[in-house]
Amino acid sequence: MAYFDNISKIKFDGPQSKDPLAFKFYNPEEQINGKSMEETLKFGVAYWHTFMEDLSDPFGVGTAERPWDKYSDPMDRAKARVDASFEFFDKLGVPYFCFHDFDIAPEGSNLKETLANQDVIVDMMEDYMKDSKVKLLWNTVNNFTNPMFVHGASTSSNADVFAYAAAKVKKGLEVGKRLGSESYVFWGGREGYESLLNTNMGLELDNLARFFHMANDYAKEIGFDAQFLIEPKPKEPTTHQYDFDVAHGFAFLQKYNLQDVFKFNIEANHATLAGHSFEHELHYARINGMLGSVDANQGHPQLGWDTDEFPSDLYATTLAMYEILKNGGLEKGGLNFDAKVRRTSFKPEDLFKAHIVGMDSFALGAKVAQRLIDDKALESIVEKRYSSFNQGIGKEIVDGKTDFKKLQDYALKLDKVENESGNVEVIKSILNQYLVTTIAQG
Amino acid sequence: MAYFDNISKIKFDGPQSKDPLAFKFYNPEEQINGKSMEETLKFGVAYWHTFMEDLSDPFGVGTAERPWDKYSDPMDRAKARVDASFEFFDKLGVPYFCFHDFDIAPEGSNLKETLANQDVIVDMMEDYMKDSKVKLLWNTVNNFTNPMFVHGASTSSNADVFAYAAAKVKKGLEVGKRLGSESYVFWGGREGYESLLNTNMGLELDNLARFFHMANDYAKEIGFDAQFLIEPKPKEPTTHQYDFDVAHGFAFLQKYNLQDVFKFNIEANHATLAGHSFEHELHYARINGMLGSVDANQGHPQLGWDTDEFPSDLYATTLAMYEILKNGGLEKGGLNFDAKVRRTSFKPEDLFKAHIVGMDSFALGAKVAQRLIDDKALESIVEKRYSSFNQGIGKEIVDGKTDFKKLQDYALKLDKVENESGNVEVIKSILNQYLVTTIAQG
Amino acid sequence: MAYFDNISKIKFDGPQSKDPLAFKFYNPEEQINGKSMEETLKFGVAYWHTFMEDLSDPFGVGTAERPWDKYSDPMDRAKARVDASFEFFDKLGVPYFCFHDFDIAPEGSNLKETLANQDVIVDMMEDYMKDSKVKLLWNTVNNFTNPMFVHGASTSSNADVFAYAAAKVKKGLEVGKRLGSESYVFWGGREGYESLLNTNMGLELDNLARFFHMANDYAKEIGFDAQFLIEPKPKEPTTHQYDFDVAHGFAFLQKYNLQDVFKFNIEANHATLAGHSFEHELHYARINGMLGSVDANQGHPQLGWDTDEFPSDLYATTLAMYEILKNGGLEKGGLNFDAKVRRTSFKPEDLFKAHIVGMDSFALGAKVAQRLIDDKALESIVEKRYSSFNQGIGKEIVDGKTDFKKLQDYALKLDKVENESGNVEVIKSILNQYLVTTIAQG
Amino acid sequence: MAYFDNISKIKFDGPQSKDPLAFKFYNPEEQINGKSMEETLKFGVAYWHTFMEDLSDPFGVGTAERPWDKYSDPMDRAKARVDASFEFFDKLGVPYFCFHDFDIAPEGSNLKETLANQDVIVDMMEDYMKDSKVKLLWNTVNNFTNPMFVHGASTSSNADVFAYAAAKVKKGLEVGKRLGSESYVFWGGREGYESLLNTNMGLELDNLARFFHMANDYAKEIGFDAQFLIEPKPKEPTTHQYDFDVAHGFAFLQKYNLQDVFKFNIEANHATLAGHSFEHELHYARINGMLGSVDANQGHPQLGWDTDEFPSDLYATTLAMYEILKNGGLEKGGLNFDAKVRRTSFKPEDLFKAHIVGMDSFALGAKVAQRLIDDKALESIVEKRYSSFNQGIGKEIVDGKTDFKKLQDYALKLDKVENESGNVEVIKSILNQYLVTTIAQG
Ligand SMILES: [Co+2]
Ligand SMILES: [Co+2]
Ligand SMILES: [Co+2]
Ligand SMILES: [Co+2]
Ligand SMILES: [Co+2]
Ligand SMILES: [Co+2]
Ligand SMILES: [Co+2]
Ligand SMILES: [Co+2]
Repeated sequence: MAYFDNISKIKFDGPQSKDPLAFKFYNPEEQINGKSMEETLKFGVAYWHTFMEDLSDPFGVGTAERPWDKYSDPMDRAKARVDASFEFFDKLGVPYFCFHDFDIAPEGSNLKETLANQDVIVDMMEDYMKDSKVKLLWNTVNNFTNPMFVHGASTSSNADVFAYAAAKVKKGLEVGKRLGSESYVFWGGREGYESLLNTNMGLELDNLARFFHMANDYAKEIGFDAQFLIEPKPKEPTTHQYDFDVAHGFAFLQKYNLQDVFKFNIEANHATLAGHSFEHELHYARINGMLGSVDANQGHPQLGWDTDEFPSDLYATTLAMYEILKNGGLEKGGLNFDAKVRRTSFKPEDLFKAHIVGMDSFALGAKVAQRLIDDKALESIVEKRYSSFNQGIGKEIVDGKTDFKKLQDYALKLDKVENESGNVEVIKSILNQYLVTTIAQG
Repeated sequence: MAYFDNISKIKFDGPQSKDPLAFKFYNPEEQINGKSMEETLKFGVAYWHTFMEDLSDPFGVGTAERPWDKYSDPMDRAKARVDASFEFFDKLGVPYFCFHDFDIAPEGSNLKETLANQDVIVDMMEDYMKDSKVKLLWNTVNNFTNPMFVHGASTSSNADVFAYAAAKVKKGLEVGKRLGSESYVFWGGREGYESLLNTNMGLELDNLARFFHMANDYAKEIGFDAQFLIEPKPKEPTTHQYDFDVAHGFAFLQKYNLQDVFKFNIEANHATLAGHSFEHELHYARINGMLGSVDANQGHPQLGWDTDEFPSDLYATTLAMYEILKNGGLEKGGLNFDAKVRRTSFKPEDLFKAHIVGMDSFALGAKVAQRLIDDKALESIVEKRYSSFNQGIGKEIVDGKTDFKKLQDYALKLDKVENESGNVEVIKSILNQYLVTTIAQG
Repeated sequence: MAYFDNISKIKFDGPQSKDPLAFKFYNPEEQINGKSMEETLKFGVAYWHTFMEDLSDPFGVGTAERPWDKYSDPMDRAKARVDASFEFFDKLGVPYFCFHDFDIAPEGSNLKETLANQDVIVDMMEDYMKDSKVKLLWNTVNNFTNPMFVHGASTSSNADVFAYAAAKVKKGLEVGKRLGSESYVFWGGREGYESLLNTNMGLELDNLARFFHMANDYAKEIGFDAQFLIEPKPKEPTTHQYDFDVAHGFAFLQKYNLQDVFKFNIEANHATLAGHSFEHELHYARINGMLGSVDANQGHPQLGWDTDEFPSDLYATTLAMYEILKNGGLEKGGLNFDAKVRRTSFKPEDLFKAHIVGMDSFALGAKVAQRLIDDKALESIVEKRYSSFNQGIGKEIVDGKTDFKKLQDYALKLDKVENESGNVEVIKSILNQYLVTTIAQG
Repeated sequence: MAYFDNISKIKFDGPQSKDPLAFKFYNPEEQINGKSMEETLKFGVAYWHTFMEDLSDPFGVGTAERPWDKYSDPMDRAKARVDASFEFFDKLGVPYFCFHDFDIAPEGSNLKETLANQDVIVDMMEDYMKDSKVKLLWNTVNNFTNPMFVHGASTSSNADVFAYAAAKVKKGLEVGKRLGSESYVFWGGREGYESLLNTNMGLELDNLARFFHMANDYAKEIGFDAQFLIEPKPKEPTTHQYDFDVAHGFAFLQKYNLQDVFKFNIEANHATLAGHSFEHELHYARINGMLGSVDANQGHPQLGWDTDEFPSDLYATTLAMYEILKNGGLEKGGLNFDAKVRRTSFKPEDLFKAHIVGMDSFALGAKVAQRLIDDKALESIVEKRYSSFNQGIGKEIVDGKTDFKKLQDYALKLDKVENESGNVEVIKSILNQYLVTTIAQG
């Protein structure tokens, strides 16, 4: 049955289109550096925001008009959502989706029933996926909504909760394997603290590492070769999340010898909440070989919580795609729209319109980024700027052939140190030129 | 004598230009809604950042290479700056400039000498201005740098300081009149508090109002008809500046019956430090009839102080120009680049390059904004959204023809309240389309 | 019937008490400057947080264990809450409470039913209040939770919603009158904007003013003489709330000639979200004669949303009480605990424990503040600091007997301007001394 | 010669003292857990803030009145500062001090002269230290003020600058050895980026690691066994400092195999600028065995830059001392007052008064913290909260004796998961009780 009858398959209509239900910049077959936009961008739909979100906020109940809400039985509603989702994926033309366990199937009255509910839906999804080109980008489990997880899951102060969380992740790994998931994500839900004063952070972090090692062991045991991903976030819902940002995660992974098992799923809004730019987090992960996947959304510069807006800022999408293209793509990752329509955009068609905005914004960002790379517009500036490390004392430093005594001898003989302007203003202007002329260039 | 020998007059070279010393988007004669870009944008150079700033920061001494620094005598250096500035205005092609008293002439050993120093420089400027099309957008006095103003100026705890500040502003008004300044600015320097615990805020605000009334009286007395402007800023250097944002200023002006004497000079970076967007402050001032002038710069989203960067964000410049164009321009105001090159951009030519970036960014913003207005791209959405106030109960509300009893009667009969989607995502997408296609459209 | 059987009446047990269900500092009969603590502090319980809040957050469902949840019928549950609340007020010993219309009674299937539901509960409350010393500090209506208010209430883009909001406030005023409410609060729920791009801010603010005038007219008509209060908040749920802070509200009230009708209800957490300290907002309101009432809570310095924590920071409570005591108390206002227990504090007894923490923190703050006032510990510093305005040129300034010419003459004759140290560090130390020695002094 | 003639040796005068030049809480000989306050707190004076700082800010010149400024020759002034500093240490009674190379001696016209200037002053200090109990807590070099370091020092884009920086640190290590410094600090000055767009972060971080390894090699070579310390800071002066916070530093150290060579010097104001609480950073370092030393200051909750205020917040000092005492003290670290008097506190005696406030605040914090530890006031809560990990499934988790399959089996059999309240409100109240009753207890 159809849930979006009034929506046709979304088509590319060009940059001047006035149709909110058409792509202006995303043209799936268009080539970017020898690959189609579709392959390059690997867009994914977040099941939770698109099919579960009722658009409530802390000051108001849900406003969302969702056709599947006509079913009162939770399993009926879950099945209707699967139907609606594959219709949505097809009409929008996205190749991937992502979900938590509780997005796809309701909790039962006990764990056994909960797991059984998932099996029903996974069967149904598997059927759909046979006849669809849509794939699972990543799955995860929701170990934070249920009151049981009030003090965390793998970092709970309650050992029973740790066990329960493990039971759910075990199932998540099995589901991921069945559906051929490319990655598996660990977002730290309530893994953090409300207050340091009642917290044993040392034990909690040790337990988190134990949990990750057991997850890895079990994935190996069942032959699930997805890329494991940590998704950092600095705060919310807890006061201080342990996976604060990529660097926190990287410190943790190294301490517990997990750095070869995990990469990072970087969300734009989480980056900015942590006091970094989106591109900073991507860049830091990339140069450390840890860039796994991206949660494509944006925050609001005046708001201090995770607004999960659909990405529209072309500076951010351009610089994000710049990092991704320089990374050689995302391998087992993609661009998951961990984004929700505003509470004021409550119509079913707003789901399409908002995804179109996000896809257009990243498609245009990719085109601009590729032009920057092709022209070496930024790289040539950077190369020239650091050229002193290609020869003489600079090369000795890089080659490890010097020491403080030799360097002091060298410095004592230096007549004058000459620096060049960093040209930051001009570089921003180049970015602007690329942004506003790329469409004209086709 | 020439200070920028290696710089020729800056020319418009088009959007694809790779010359950092050419305009890409600012073409002074190009028409925007029947006026030249030059008249529409009214760009001004900030004397302090461009000719006084040594690019020191709290962690390092100045890096700026400035040819006029070869003069060791303060008055010689001040005169050299005047020469350099008019060369700069001419080569850059800006029609306005702005200054504080201490930017143009050094303090003497006492107030009399200080005022006399200003006269020498003002004479020199007057001469230059006879042969130049460059005009004074606004002047002001620096009542915050000297240690005397450690506790504020017109809000100092020390009555002598109040008097001293008045003496300087009196001179500032005279200088403004002599040079035909279009506006006169009051930025609140240290008018605020370090700590509430040692502060008599009531007395300080009363004194501030007394000061403003005296300034207005004196301006009238000497026939100086400039627009008076308050420039709000929320903090820095004090912990809490009294002119926190436009609304704080508006509350103050109304309380002290000064709302007809003043408008606001709105700085982008001050807006964002106050927790608002730049366009919010402009819009709020506009709908209250208080939009006077603009300090065109930008802050850094990850930094919590006034970075005064040259404006390059095209979203910000477009939305700022949207407000300014809807305001019918800025009358006695303009776009003053209260912006400084980064400490890493220390070469003299960086001063030109950075201004070019700012001018190009606002020129492009103006073109995009005018297209949005011409097409009623946003206005038609807004008009439709509020159309219920053009008829029926809505019209009665607006016309003041109803009351709570009638409204309750009406509401009791309402069957269902129907709302429309706010379409926020789509509107952002429209803005993107205008941004990236305006150049292609010519 | 009793809902808190395991809780006895809360008693004062002194500063060393280890009983989480006893007061350590709040001793209702203890005198502060000739009035009992109970009269001085006028504590109120917020019905919504204490009896409605399920402790859900955007990432998890409710955790709260609440005995009245055993009733499935909404009216039964509403009645149970009334029973529970008066038991709670009595056992805790608070003299006041506050509510929204939807806190006390569920919405019906239409407005008529909704209003009728309220009547049932108000009857019940009236009965309780006859035999209780508990009074209504203020009431208000919730015009933000229902999806109808998605675009605001009195600032909605939909005229029907304006009418509906008016109908509800009309009832709110009638309910307030019936229950003898001392004040009536307008918190701006969704009166603000999601995005400036689709908003007619001018019309929305005009409509807000029209709404307030109609409310005032109706209150006069029915003889409801409560103090009207605006509760400012800068953001959340909207991106930009119109009543951003006290200064925004004050500017608005003056523009629309409402400044004699309203005062402000200042919430600590809203103050800090707006970039001010709590005491700043109180002080600013006080010196403008606009300090009406206080929402006693606190935010979290690392979190960017309204956490509504129970107040425990003794610096904040001391400085808040300092302002309140200097204001001569709050007249028709009080200290309403607009605060919720943490999601991790989900037991019924946590409601008592958390209120005790808040009451103790303000009681201690009041004792410290009164000592500061009695000793003129801060006032003598301030008086001395501004003493130059009591004589000579300072007195002429304050008396309006001078002008810029006379002040310049004076300044030209000044030999040297001498400033005093602001002593900020020492003043903080004095505050610390008062804080840690007040208990020892008894 | 004496520079503080009007100041006598600062004495302990008790909690009720009204003398701003006496200690209220710091009593050097008083015992805390068997050690004197002096040994426990290891206070140090920051040479830069106390003897170099002129109290200028970006909007004003220096206000500081400093008796040594009467000397115009830089070396004379440097020598006067040494005299003044040892007089200051002695009168204040602090056992330690800290400095940068450029604090103690002016730069010469070339590197050779610069190093020679340092030798003169180090000789002089060595003389003083023979007759004084004052020791060097740590030294460092200033590789950020000179324009040469505009693009960083060991992360400069210019290899010559790397060499120059190395030359200076080599000397710094030699000076540290001569003066018996307990630690040696690396604060990342300009080691970060202005803009990611012109930065090779990978090369810069590799070079930073090379620099640290060379520093360690040289320290070993000369037998300087100080503790190496990284001082994290998230931003300012650069847009993004590489040593953002402790976790960033820990990730870096592990990646480059430097984790056994370094610990962290944690500054309160840097912690809060990074979005953490002070105690969080201390705790995180402690549980990772990386807590080295502390820069004792505080930031301002409403200001977004490094205000370096003298510490006065008793919550912060108590929780900091709690971490330090639980760490068994700081071994080769101490409490360095990296704090400056406010620009409005410009008198010489303000230097004493402000240090007294800081010392009193930490002394009181230490007393309160020790009481909390002695009573196990917080520890017993934490122990009970995590007791499920001492037995059964919890113990198996901690002992590594389980896996996902066993945990799922366990979870499937769980009837119900029972959680306890986190009691956060009550715990804050306990902290308040300890704070306000400790003085009464003596
Ligand atoms: Co998010
Ligand atoms: Co995400
Ligand atoms: Co400005
Ligand atoms: Co500025
Ligand atoms: Co409130
Ligand atoms: Co609140
Ligand atoms: Co420091
Ligand atoms: Co600092």
